[in-house]
Amino acid sequence: MTKAGLFLTFEGIDGSGKSTQARMLAEHLRAQGHEVVLTREPGGSAGAEEIRSLVLEGDPDRWSAETEILLFTAARRDHLERTIEPALAAGKVVICDRFADSTRMYQGLSRGDLRNLVDQLHSLMIGREPDMTLLIDMDPETGLARAKGRQGTEERFEDFGPELQKKMRAGFLALADEFPDRFHIVDGNRDMDSVAQDVTEIVQAALR
Amino acid sequence: MTKAGLFLTFEGIDGSGKSTQARMLAEHLRAQGHEVVLTREPGGSAGAEEIRSLVLEGDPDRWSAETEILLFTAARRDHLERTIEPALAAGKVVICDRFADSTRMYQGLSRGDLRNLVDQLHSLMIGREPDMTLLIDMDPETGLARAKGRQGTEERFEDFGPELQKKMRAGFLALADEFPDRFHIVDGNRDMDSVAQDVTEIVQAALR
Repeated sequence: MTKAGLFLTFEGIDGSGKSTQARMLAEHLRAQGHEVVLTREPGGSAGAEEIRSLVLEGDPDRWSAETEILLFTAARRDHLERTIEPALAAGKVVICDRFADSTRMYQGLSRGDLRNLVDQLHSLMIGREPDMTLLIDMDPETGLARAKGRQGTEERFEDFGPELQKKMRAGFLALADEFPDRFHIVDGNRDMDSVAQDVTEIVQAALR
Repeated sequence: MTKAGLFLTFEGIDGSGKSTQARMLAEHLRAQGHEVVLTREPGGSAGAEEIRSLVLEGDPDRWSAETEILLFTAARRDHLERTIEPALAAGKVVICDRFADSTRMYQGLSRGDLRNLVDQLHSLMIGREPDMTLLIDMDPETGLARAKGRQGTEERFEDFGPELQKKMRAGFLALADEFPDRFHIVDGNRDMDSVAQDVTEIVQAALR
């Protein structure tokens, strides 16, 4: 059993397979006897899911980039207070599909150069980083094709062309350089079991 | 006609009569030929009204003070971008029932000492003060009795006892001391026409 909580996040471009990997890791750790909370952003708590709907549904231009950053930060604060921190305090492993790094990329880069604003708001209102971040790195074209294959009503994050996918991939790799202590890059251009095996090995090392 | 826009806000405790005064001032200025936008917070734009509903409806403890501050700031940002700034740019008079000073009081004081956080967030994401703020000052007991007489489904702001009303009144007066250039204190303990006459005189001086 885990003695202290561990906060793991998965990041990557759309279609990178990170949600599948987050789920597979949760199953693997549960089978080993760990208490695991599998969650996601935006969302992950009752209030944050309501904010998610407010942001992602409707006209993509209904919110400015700055208002969107504020809404995502409100959702993250609620998620952190209501789901993540209580689980960590109880010694559980929290696996979160996207966290603040996604805001640094999608809100910080895609609608203008707002990274500095994102960072200041994060430092003021969140002030918490994951213990470990698994970046599932993926060829942007392949990721885009996969993401388009499962398009639903919440199309905001998938409604991006190949140029933006390339920019986001490069951005995530640059983030990994910026936070080398917590980032681990996993090659996602392989079958999901091979990717899962790498993920498991990295995480096991942290749990020992 | 107004040449440049003018941004006026009304502040005060619940039941102070500020909403009535805002409406009376709008009518008065329109009768003089000014183009007036009468608006309110939280709310005042389509998106901000949706955020208002999210915050004010449901269990009062559903959001932490910090998440609530983020949601109100998101609403204010949207209101500013979509309603206030376009109207000011078109040379209109904007009259707003509550603005950032209410957040400084209600979120900054009532649920703990969060004024510093409110100020930092305001400076980062809003960065705009009204040209003139009319504080309708009112005896807390009278205000509370009036506010209770019109309680509706959005009871969050009215669900306060006499002690908090006193604290808020003192807080607003302290804010007026802090921002002497834009604050004007009007004695609200009189019939509404006398109050309106004072308000009109103060605003006319700014419009000349």
